[in-house]
Amino acid sequence: MRTIWLDLMYDGKTFHGWQIQENAVTVQEEFQKALRQVIGEECDIKGCSRTDAGVHANMYCVSFRTEHPIPVDRIPPALNHFLPTTIAVKRAMVMDEGFHARYSCRGKEYVYKIWNHPVRNPFVEGYALHYWYPLDLSRMNEAAAHLLGTHDFTSFCTPDTRKKDNMCRTIRHAEWTSQGDMVQFTIEADGFLYNMVRIIVGTLLYVAQGKIAPEDIPKITAAKDRHFSGPTAPPQGLYLNRVFYDGIET
Amino acid sequence: MRTIWLDLMYDGKTFHGWQIQENAVTVQEEFQKALRQVIGEECDIKGCSRTDAGVHANMYCVSFRTEHPIPVDRIPPALNHFLPTTIAVKRAMVMDEGFHARYSCRGKEYVYKIWNHPVRNPFVEGYALHYWYPLDLSRMNEAAAHLLGTHDFTSFCTPDTRKKDNMCRTIRHAEWTSQGDMVQFTIEADGFLYNMVRIIVGTLLYVAQGKIAPEDIPKITAAKDRHFSGPTAPPQGLYLNRVFYDGIET
Repeated sequence: MRTIWLDLMYDGKTFHGWQIQENAVTVQEEFQKALRQVIGEECDIKGCSRTDAGVHANMYCVSFRTEHPIPVDRIPPALNHFLPTTIAVKRAMVMDEGFHARYSCRGKEYVYKIWNHPVRNPFVEGYALHYWYPLDLSRMNEAAAHLLGTHDFTSFCTPDTRKKDNMCRTIRHAEWTSQGDMVQFTIEADGFLYNMVRIIVGTLLYVAQGKIAPEDIPKITAAKDRHFSGPTAPPQGLYLNRVFYDGIET
Repeated sequence: MRTIWLDLMYDGKTFHGWQIQENAVTVQEEFQKALRQVIGEECDIKGCSRTDAGVHANMYCVSFRTEHPIPVDRIPPALNHFLPTTIAVKRAMVMDEGFHARYSCRGKEYVYKIWNHPVRNPFVEGYALHYWYPLDLSRMNEAAAHLLGTHDFTSFCTPDTRKKDNMCRTIRHAEWTSQGDMVQFTIEADGFLYNMVRIIVGTLLYVAQGKIAPEDIPKITAAKDRHFSGPTAPPQGLYLNRVFYDGIET
């Protein structure tokens, strides 16, 4: 029995996120179908996280256990043969028995893309948020810096009645950059709460609009109340960009 | 009566090129419908060139004449309101009466994009050619340099029985570059024959494959025979990138 780790990439435009759902096409469903074709058995597939409908992944990791003897380097091309072109498997590795795509994860990096120009760009429809007005990145970076470190991020999480988790996370990096008219927010943390990146982006866009001052961020965090932060930014600009594990290069 | 110039951008993935056709959705058809909504009259729209199905445009220019009093700077947002999100109007200007998007054009620049990696990239499906094997850009550039200058490019043109044009064109720039795994060919000329860029790209990929030597290029050109050059590269990697006119900044 081997434990296999895979690194995937997917265009989330036509998917309702990773996790299998009734009446909606998801990445997990397409992946499971392809894996069944390749190894001929049903596997319990562990994904590194849930992702929302319309969210993309430059790197998304899964793990599963199998007794099938296929050489590990043959797994990506075999799966890619059966997967739709909106999903690609980039790498495969055999891991120690206890490895789990979600529980072994040491952190993640997301990027959020904004097409910042008065005229829309047909090539980024569904792949970036279109924002018409100039963005003051230095002000947005001043606000983002207040998020760094370990905090209770209840204010930046869509309330979820299912369970009361520990709401503390450690943000290691949070920075706005731009290349031409494409603006990008990069954020790395040990983990993320539900909708956390999208609410942070929505809040930092409120900073750009002057509705929130950079120095308000610590107060919003301290409030531990979703009502104090900005709106949830739309999903199409969001990409899971890197997933960190011990001993795996990103 | 004013002569209006427009700069458009379009994602060619779902279009059968620019020019209106029976039984196929074209950019011109969508543009004409939007223009009718804005100025309420039928115009004779001149496009800077035909483009094939699946080919994209970062810059595509049109001209038309109208008596409608709409301020010229209101034309792009008004058209964008009625156009599908796959097309965007970036700029509008009033030109001299004799201006014609095609006949006043001083040259064009195309780019051709190749995703050069063994694994496909879901984000560039339909937006770049996927080429698995390593490409020797210095060898491809050596071959491309032989195309510079004024030549009869019959060997790099899909034969067209409709008329016998002058087949001479002047290539001012032709260069392969790369950024990560994305390889790009940039070519500028005073004009291009039918399928010329795609046949040049197909021929330079034959150079990469060792089927044609860089020093064979002058012989292929001199033959003035389509049978000596390489295949026509697929349309999805091709972008009309810049269109040159006197007095208009690209």
